[in-house]
Amino acid sequence: MYKIVLMRHGESTWNLENRFTGWTDVDLTPKGVEEAKTAGKLLKEKGYSFDLAFTSVLKRANKTLNTVLEEIDQLWLPVVHSWRLNERHYGALQGLDKGETAAKFGDEQVKIWRRSYDVPPPALEEGDARLNTNDPRYHDLPAAEFPRTECLKDTVARFVPYWLETIAPEVKAGKRVIIAAHGNSLRALIKYLDNMSEAEILELNIPTAQPLVYELDADLKPIKHYYLADPDVIAAAAAAVANQGKAK
Amino acid sequence: MYKIVLMRHGESTWNLENRFTGWTDVDLTPKGVEEAKTAGKLLKEKGYSFDLAFTSVLKRANKTLNTVLEEIDQLWLPVVHSWRLNERHYGALQGLDKGETAAKFGDEQVKIWRRSYDVPPPALEEGDARLNTNDPRYHDLPAAEFPRTECLKDTVARFVPYWLETIAPEVKAGKRVIIAAHGNSLRALIKYLDNMSEAEILELNIPTAQPLVYELDADLKPIKHYYLADPDVIAAAAAAVANQGKAK
Repeated sequence: MYKIVLMRHGESTWNLENRFTGWTDVDLTPKGVEEAKTAGKLLKEKGYSFDLAFTSVLKRANKTLNTVLEEIDQLWLPVVHSWRLNERHYGALQGLDKGETAAKFGDEQVKIWRRSYDVPPPALEEGDARLNTNDPRYHDLPAAEFPRTECLKDTVARFVPYWLETIAPEVKAGKRVIIAAHGNSLRALIKYLDNMSEAEILELNIPTAQPLVYELDADLKPIKHYYLADPDVIAAAAAAVANQGKAK
Repeated sequence: MYKIVLMRHGESTWNLENRFTGWTDVDLTPKGVEEAKTAGKLLKEKGYSFDLAFTSVLKRANKTLNTVLEEIDQLWLPVVHSWRLNERHYGALQGLDKGETAAKFGDEQVKIWRRSYDVPPPALEEGDARLNTNDPRYHDLPAAEFPRTECLKDTVARFVPYWLETIAPEVKAGKRVIIAAHGNSLRALIKYLDNMSEAEILELNIPTAQPLVYELDADLKPIKHYYLADPDVIAAAAAAVANQGKAK
């Protein structure tokens, strides 16, 4: 039996401002850093340690991971960064306020863009300053393949192969793995692992900076999963996430 | 022509307490964190960015590196950790106060242990709690080969092969490399790069958290080297390091 820990980054500045973030490289808020510290202390208290970490190339996930690693005294841990763990790309909505977007397009359209499986938001146009194809962190991503927008299906299509080809072999080799990523990239992985329907994944809200343990069998099929924090803490955190994007 | 940046970690708690540290995994002081931030801001101001980082498995170097990477907005950078970049192992002196040690053994004996090329301090004995051969960060280091003490010659013997086999090929491949390590592991590398004598390296004091640039030719022989900070800042910092270990 194998065990992996998934974790969404702590609160970011744009979570706080309720803006669509996607691949925009926003920082954690001080609260987000505290959330990550709390997660690290919880992992330490429960006796967790790791052999290998995977994260995105976005600082809110990197910093969440580093904060956790400092708390569990594993700053020396090997860390693999990949854009394939990035948040879902939010296209032309990146940077827009969710409340304003909801007021303009309606709660339902926003919910479709946020939560539908295969309807991407409007794409970034060529020449848009937000289309940062030359950023060196994406040197292994050809400009033509650089996402202009993504639906969750697209996020699944770029993350699941990475899970299968890169992460899963390490887990099967006995490495204790932690994955520090984003709401939608984790949703992509969980959909795959738990073989969830498109409707089910749409309703899944992953709270920020809460260690989520998946116990996996020899074929890496989930046996069970659970958050390390108390259920009432998790319920409140998930509800807060679910309420994001509603018009104020 | 190639360019690498070397950096010693910021002030650690045992630098502050004037205790022999070696492989003991002590944290940075708040001042040490600030030093690292200053170094990161300086690198940013001078337009530095990197493709790859190397560091030890000790948190004072890891945290210095992470702090720098955050300042230059490269938290996504690939980082390779190796015990071969660790500080020189200080044997049975690890944990002892430098002033007390100097008062007991004399300034000269302490200077010999600190600065001689081939005289190691007394070795840790088997069973000493400080001999942490089971620490998972040293999983690739067989217990029999785990250092019990080191002279600088020993540090050279375990770091230079790593430079030649692992770091140098990356530099030659065009990667812009930063190395965040320790006073004596950097001294080991510099002795090799600059082909310094044992007497010369004994007198070299590397200030904490000051980016040190080496420009290298096609064969990785140094063309020149320089600190990024102003010379008076460097002189004061190096003098402070040179005064460590004198009896108070």
